[in-house]
Amino acid sequence: MALVKFIEYADANREVRAVYDDIMTSRKVDWITNFWKALASDPATLKRTWDSVKQVMTPGALDYLTKELIYVAVSVTNNCEYCINSHIAAARKAGMSDAMLAELIAVVGMANETNRLANGYQIEVDERVAKAAKQR
Amino acid sequence: MALVKFIEYADANREVRAVYDDIMTSRKVDWITNFWKALASDPATLKRTWDSVKQVMTPGALDYLTKELIYVAVSVTNNCEYCINSHIAAARKAGMSDAMLAELIAVVGMANETNRLANGYQIEVDERVAKAAKQR
Amino acid sequence: MALVKFIEYADANREVRAVYDDIMTSRKVDWITNFWKALASDPATLKRTWDSVKQVMTPGALDYLTKELIYVAVSVTNNCEYCINSHIAAARKAGMSDAMLAELIAVVGMANETNRLANGYQIEVDERVAKAAKQR
Amino acid sequence: MALVKFIEYADANREVRAVYDDIMTSRKVDWITNFWKALASDPATLKRTWDSVKQVMTPGALDYLTKELIYVAVSVTNNCEYCINSHIAAARKAGMSDAMLAELIAVVGMANETNRLANGYQIEVDERVAKAAKQR
Amino acid sequence: MALVKFIEYADANREVRAVYDDIMTSRKVDWITNFWKALASDPATLKRTWDSVKQVMTPGALDYLTKELIYVAVSVTNNCEYCINSHIAAARKAGMSDAMLAELIAVVGMANETNRLANGYQIEVDERVAKAAKQR
Amino acid sequence: MALVKFIEYADANREVRAVYDDIMTSRKVDWITNFWKALASDPATLKRTWDSVKQVMTPGALDYLTKELIYVAVSVTNNCEYCINSHIAAARKAGMSDAMLAELIAVVGMANETNRLANGYQIEVDERVAKAAKQR
Repeated sequence: MALVKFIEYADANREVRAVYDDIMTSRKVDWITNFWKALASDPATLKRTWDSVKQVMTPGALDYLTKELIYVAVSVTNNCEYCINSHIAAARKAGMSDAMLAELIAVVGMANETNRLANGYQIEVDERVAKAAKQR
Repeated sequence: MALVKFIEYADANREVRAVYDDIMTSRKVDWITNFWKALASDPATLKRTWDSVKQVMTPGALDYLTKELIYVAVSVTNNCEYCINSHIAAARKAGMSDAMLAELIAVVGMANETNRLANGYQIEVDERVAKAAKQR
Repeated sequence: MALVKFIEYADANREVRAVYDDIMTSRKVDWITNFWKALASDPATLKRTWDSVKQVMTPGALDYLTKELIYVAVSVTNNCEYCINSHIAAARKAGMSDAMLAELIAVVGMANETNRLANGYQIEVDERVAKAAKQR
Repeated sequence: MALVKFIEYADANREVRAVYDDIMTSRKVDWITNFWKALASDPATLKRTWDSVKQVMTPGALDYLTKELIYVAVSVTNNCEYCINSHIAAARKAGMSDAMLAELIAVVGMANETNRLANGYQIEVDERVAKAAKQR
Repeated sequence: MALVKFIEYADANREVRAVYDDIMTSRKVDWITNFWKALASDPATLKRTWDSVKQVMTPGALDYLTKELIYVAVSVTNNCEYCINSHIAAARKAGMSDAMLAELIAVVGMANETNRLANGYQIEVDERVAKAAKQR
Repeated sequence: MALVKFIEYADANREVRAVYDDIMTSRKVDWITNFWKALASDPATLKRTWDSVKQVMTPGALDYLTKELIYVAVSVTNNCEYCINSHIAAARKAGMSDAMLAELIAVVGMANETNRLANGYQIEVDERVAKAAKQR
């Protein structure tokens, strides 16, 4: 059980309701998840976090689904149960198939493995690779 | 400096050379990075890791560039310098623009933040979200 | 369910009881939490861990509440459910208000985000910053 | 070396300069660190991150120094070299003594240890503790 | 509840059954755990993962029990509940006593602590140590 | 460069020298590594950490080399450069061969991968496994 009280729409003040309304409009849903209801215990964090998530997840150079896949990759690496569930749900809604989920998790697993092979042997970055990684 | 000796092509045995050849053919390059030269100190790990990476990174339900973006997301979360450099280099080569990199890192940052907001308040997964996350 | 049996006071040997007594006296409580009852399955680890925690958490240059806030910050970053609950409980007992908790978690979230922005872009430490971070 | 170009004040557009000016005014400094100069390669992330950091780090229920100590605790746990240096520098400037740093790092170490003791034995949260951790 | 359907032996295709048979034969058991039944939703990942785990966990320069202890150490550090349970179970089956488990977890805790002491003070590797860590 | 001054033997007070002497005697070496020289800036942490490390690393149900392998596994997972180098050096000194190192790092990599496969699919622990993991 969460460590703060959830703020329901009916009990929310005007500032919180404005964020809830924007969440529901932007996401085309008619309810608010526990994540936002918990953050609403601290309206400044609620507003700042929603504004940031909204900005960051808006399609731009990367499309929305790709951004959700990246969100899942981080959440799985950190083992955040809430975030794994909510972002896999969001990705499915945005069109992620079972096959795409399977490949996503396979890549996340492999990256976590090779990260430790590189760390374990303390392998230095190739000069050519470092150069290719840089902005021209 | 790496904790194992790098195996150069000229010094490699037949088993290692076969992997090196497959890496260069598959990736259309004419040289081998330090990562593989370090793993070659243990030919069984070299072969298994290359076979796995090759299988996992082959385009399927997800295209290759998306897979590299996911690889970068994990490597940044874990702070693996070698992997950040090598997979950002690979993603650039596969067409990642500066704008895509900026959005990728912004999503990775945001996910790492909200993972801790969810953990910190110990927010339980909404039943509806859990259901939506599951395979039907 | 824990992977080791909890040692209750009534079943504890003299060595374990001495630690339990010191915990209850130091913390002004009349019961022992699961954490210590699990560690008591290995009395040497129980004693060493309690002695270390006691030394580390004693008010010194930092007051006790600040130390509990730091403990929570680490536990949230690592997503240790037991430690998040027990150290938030301890911090509340020591005077942490809801507003303080909200700010604590907001800082933890932000730090986890900017850690990855710095990693992701592989930003080198400014010489002036490195110098200012050092003991004079 | 960073993977993006640093944007110097002289080369910055109006949007970036406005953020730089606000950073220098708020922090009472006359220069910009590499972190912000790297983020400026993506002005939207620069502005959003600065606005968020500014809001989160403003003294409120917790004073500024306590917030910097928490920032260091997270950065040490995640091993972010840039952030360890910059936030220890900031904490020193805000009055952190050598003794406070020593106690901070000791608590961070201990928390990282007991997090794993709790995980390793899979210790369940005491009901009384869970209740005490919750908002009343 | 898992986010993918478990594939039971009776419902498995020939490719999945071949892996299940090999798991049961190699491990001398007559049932399949949830881990493999979940991976079987993606037969290529099932086969690759089993082949890799089998190769990596085969006794070689390190005996099987030592490998399981290492597996537990990583899983505790990452706080993977499934893996902590399954690899502690496997280690117990392979002869790990209660005393060995206690020492294993004590070392894992201590390593997580001193990792952060070294990070926190940004201690540079001694030249003699770096040299001694390298392959001769 | 470390953020605190190293305390050399010649400059150490009696309390610090006593720890240095015990380290050199216990480890049969005639010099002190940077890790301890950095901790000596805070003599209480130096003494507590050394006493704890000494107790934890003393051969018991697990031999010393196995304990060092576990230490390396944690340090690689956390990517602590100092600790990877110092504990691989210690393990080599205690008899770890190149083949043992290769197998150690292979297991660490694989565990980090399967941890994320289990997390990613949110696989619940089998009842039989949970039971087998528990102390009887």
